[in-house]
Formats: sequence, C-alpha cells, structure tokens
Amino acid sequence: MPDLREKLGGAPHSKQSLRLWLRLLSCATVIEKRLRTRLAREFHTTLPRFDVLAALERHPDGLTMGELSHALMVSNGNVTGVANRLLADGLIEREVDARDRRTFRVRLSRKGREEFATMAKVHEGWVDDMFADLTNEEIETLMEQLIRVRRSVAQSEKRAADA
Amino acid sequence: MPDLREKLGGAPHSKQSLRLWLRLLSCATVIEKRLRTRLAREFHTTLPRFDVLAALERHPDGLTMGELSHALMVSNGNVTGVANRLLADGLIEREVDARDRRTFRVRLSRKGREEFATMAKVHEGWVDDMFADLTNEEIETLMEQLIRVRRSVAQSEKRAADA
Repeated sequence: MPDLREKLGGAPHSKQSLRLWLRLLSCATVIEKRLRTRLAREFHTTLPRFDVLAALERHPDGLTMGELSHALMVSNGNVTGVANRLLADGLIEREVDARDRRTFRVRLSRKGREEFATMAKVHEGWVDDMFADLTNEEIETLMEQLIRVRRSVAQSEKRAADA
Repeated sequence: MPDLREKLGGAPHSKQSLRLWLRLLSCATVIEKRLRTRLAREFHTTLPRFDVLAALERHPDGLTMGELSHALMVSNGNVTGVANRLLADGLIEREVDARDRRTFRVRLSRKGREEFATMAKVHEGWVDDMFADLTNEEIETLMEQLIRVRRSVAQSEKRAADA
C-alpha cells in the first residue's frame, strides 16, 4: 500500500525518524565535543571527571560506586578509574558506609566542591552561549518535545520487553 | 541587577540552557545505547562498524581514510582499526586513488553493500519505533528547532574564534 504522505510530498515516518535521530545525535556530538575541548584547555580536565564531580555535587551525602555509575548520565568509561584519580587528587573522599560497613561511599572533598563550583559556573556560561540564539520560550518548547521523545523511546522499550 | 524573568517565575537563560543541554544529551545517550545493544545482539556488530559502512554507502566512489574520518558523524574511536577489520571481513575494499597514486580509497564491497542494506533496514525500523509516538509534523518541528540549535552553536563557535 503506497504511503499517502509520500504522495503528498512528505517522507515516510521511518525516514523522518532517521533524519531526526541523525540530527539529534549530531547536535549532541558537536556540543559535547566543544565542552570536552574547553574543559581540557581551560581546566586541564576531562568530561568523565567533570561528570563524576557533577553527580557527587548533586548527592551531598555521597554515593557508592554502584550508585555513582547509575547517576552518571553520560557514563561509560571506567568510573572506578576516574574516581581513583579524583581521590588521588584530593577532589573526592572515601568513607565506609554507615549502614553497610562492607561498602564505601565517595563524596566531594572541600577542595573538590570549590573546584567544581568554579568549573560549573564557567561550563554553564559555555552552554548558555551555545544556546544564546534561542529564547527562554523556545528552549522551553524544545525541552517539552524532548520529554515527549524520551517518553516515546520508553514506550518502545516497553514494547520490546513485552514482546 | 535581578533578572526580571526570574522574578516572573522562569529560570534564567543559562539555567534553562543547561537543562536543555542535559536533556538533549540524555535523549541522544539513551537512543544510542539502545542501538548499540541491538546491533550487538542482532548483528554481532558495533556502532563504529555500522557508522563506517553507512558513510561508505553514502559515498559510492569511495573515500580516503581522511575523508572517512571527516564523514563520520559519530566518529571518535579508531577509524583505521575499524576499517582494517572491515577489510579483513571482506565488507570493504581498498584501492589506490586514481588521481593520487600515493593514497588509498576504501569503498563497500558487494558483500558489504548487501550486509549493510539488511542492517540499515532493520536499524531504520528500530529508530522509527523509538519515535513512534511523534507525528511527522512533530518530527518536522523538532528538526527545525534542532537546526536552529545547530546554528546557534555555530554562531557561538564563530564568536569564540573571533575573540
């Protein structure tokens, strides 16, 4: 059965979806690459290090290594390796979990909190500048649409799991 | 000077931008992760391999290694290593460049073209399913907004280069 939309000049949904995905990916890749370069150049640090510090900043009570892996949005890479280097640099601290003496929790040290605060402010400025041509309202609209995308992906995951 | 928008209940542009960036990144990460898992499970292949084949499919006359690196949207990873394994597997072919006898070009082999066609079709179906809850019109709107984001990022890059 020929797709009516195709006849009317539009591409079929699957082609449109593919184009959207490639566009979404290239936007994220370009921005991420730029943040990576700037973190390296201006703070001699890496995105995984920044992400670990950001996750710990959101959890002042500290996280176990498992929770930390889970909390990282970008993740991948060797979380334990990154955490060990942050420990060696004195940016995070490790302590025995009060509730489960067999596990460790990591949290920001005072030095880590201070250094992250400085970096986070500058990082926020970089991101702000990259979105400078969009108004708050346009950003809000885009956010809402991306929430719909996220929901659509979750529904698709659910269908696959139920299948 | 207090931000008027903040008084009116909205967050400042920099906070909105940061939220949008994290949302954009998490959407792309979730989708990419899912595609990676499925490519591994259903075709025993990786995203870098798939991306190299996709780039060569878009360039039937073949690409030099430098052009291939440039053409990859996701990129990173070791392009040469991936290409060498695809050569060993007979999915791509290498030949001396007709115009510059010192460089090689790689292109899809017949086997590579066939295998990629099968995978690309299934891959398109996965992406289509993930965006199933969005209409063609919504996808179109989102595309346009992401093009604006891309333009805003490019302007920001230009400002940084000019500074």
